[in-house]
Amino acid sequence: MTPLWQREPVGVVGLGLIGGSLGLDLTAAGAQVRALVHRPATAARARERGLATEVSTDPAVLEGCGLVVLALPLDRLLDPDPALLAALPVGAVITDVGSVKGPVLRRWRELLAAAGDGSGASRFVASHPMAGTARAGVEAGEPGLFRGRPWVATPESGTDPAALEAVRQLAEALGARWLCCDAEAHDHAVALISHLPVLVGAALLQAADAGGGEAAEGAGLVRALASSGFADTTRVGGGNPELGMLMARSNRAALLEALGHYRRSLETLEAMVAGEQWSELQQSLERSHRLRPDFL
Amino acid sequence: MTPLWQREPVGVVGLGLIGGSLGLDLTAAGAQVRALVHRPATAARARERGLATEVSTDPAVLEGCGLVVLALPLDRLLDPDPALLAALPVGAVITDVGSVKGPVLRRWRELLAAAGDGSGASRFVASHPMAGTARAGVEAGEPGLFRGRPWVATPESGTDPAALEAVRQLAEALGARWLCCDAEAHDHAVALISHLPVLVGAALLQAADAGGGEAAEGAGLVRALASSGFADTTRVGGGNPELGMLMARSNRAALLEALGHYRRSLETLEAMVAGEQWSELQQSLERSHRLRPDFL
Repeated sequence: MTPLWQREPVGVVGLGLIGGSLGLDLTAAGAQVRALVHRPATAARARERGLATEVSTDPAVLEGCGLVVLALPLDRLLDPDPALLAALPVGAVITDVGSVKGPVLRRWRELLAAAGDGSGASRFVASHPMAGTARAGVEAGEPGLFRGRPWVATPESGTDPAALEAVRQLAEALGARWLCCDAEAHDHAVALISHLPVLVGAALLQAADAGGGEAAEGAGLVRALASSGFADTTRVGGGNPELGMLMARSNRAALLEALGHYRRSLETLEAMVAGEQWSELQQSLERSHRLRPDFL
Repeated sequence: MTPLWQREPVGVVGLGLIGGSLGLDLTAAGAQVRALVHRPATAARARERGLATEVSTDPAVLEGCGLVVLALPLDRLLDPDPALLAALPVGAVITDVGSVKGPVLRRWRELLAAAGDGSGASRFVASHPMAGTARAGVEAGEPGLFRGRPWVATPESGTDPAALEAVRQLAEALGARWLCCDAEAHDHAVALISHLPVLVGAALLQAADAGGGEAAEGAGLVRALASSGFADTTRVGGGNPELGMLMARSNRAALLEALGHYRRSLETLEAMVAGEQWSELQQSLERSHRLRPDFL
């Protein structure tokens, strides 16, 4: 059967990096894309960039959409505008793109159970396309962002299989690799491989600043000598501060657990340096060296 | 005056990433490059790759060189072959490319003071071209590796200004940015921006492995979801284990100090997450975000 995104208009709420990239690829693939944005200036720029077939600041733009993608920042996703809720078409499949899944599922299950005939919750598919760049806002969307990237869905026992299938077809049309797992496992995993690296890199920048200030020749030398290795290690740690905070806030327990693992790993390495256990240190670094290709 | 590297043959000891890249650029610039390597198979491959004008396993190849670059791994640089020492031409300018400068200076000052008329120590210029890739060995050398990269020298009060100038001319001929500072400041800085990131990234890989093993759906999910952010944050941490160990061993005190700064920075961020101090966390991440461009 023809995928839902080809049969009926697709709504996209928010045209930042993820929403804008979605809109570009979907319109290029021939979909009718109806986008809702917050500010008139964003709408005007989104029209200029061709991010959707139709762009409006009026939630009524979503009328008639068979599938709606909520491409909102986490805080607005967890506390959505009542006008948006009221404008979601009855019977539509709804999905989100948030980087944390447990809190989104709990919140939207509750919101959709209270709306309409209460059946909307079964057509909510929590999902997370794992693609990103350092950019944000209406200028950030780019074609092909999802190609080859994981797109994770976290269905529950009550999720309508047809709704899940509709989102899978959307993700695969964009070239993403489709995966399903439960929300808790997702949040646990992203704490380790996505949220922990933000704090690890942020702390490295602050340590280099604090330590450099003590050097005889000052902070300038530390900055002048930093090379591509330092730049890479701190890329996500020096990224969007609000996003970093929101991810930590929405995934606090899993992040604290990940930080515990990290602290123990680093303390073990530090003890080897302090204790001059050089063959143990080399073995430990060999283990890290062998582990890395599995994560690429 | 014509630079020393143009007037007299240049010796290169070791043809790994740094030595091989040096040889390629210097021969391309018209220098006579005489390279000493350890194994006959390396010599044969280096000749095929055109890494030097002449390649030999016999230290006598260095005869007549006005400038000798010791492009050896740190352990062999700190404990050089007596046959190499005996073959260094009397009166030649000697420089090294090691990533730690204090221990190299102390060791070579002592070695050269004991050799010949004892004047060799004044013509030893400790230096560190800050260029690298993940590659090592005779296949690793590549043209243009030093272009735009810092090349740090750490002269002492007894260093012959003409020797320092000869090394500066060599570095600048390769397109590097020349900097001088004292050895202690150098070692302090590289502990923060080069050696600390190795341990930070290595610990992250081990934490992701340890934490992933506990997830309901196992370690596979953590690996499947890791994206470019995780790859970047762990690039140097998953690098050459022996090099990582040697850097830690040669720069232990400065590295332990850097680890102390790091631990304090990370603990502060962790306490904000644990204490749900979200605006403080965002401010701290904003600080990291503002710091990073200074290091690029």
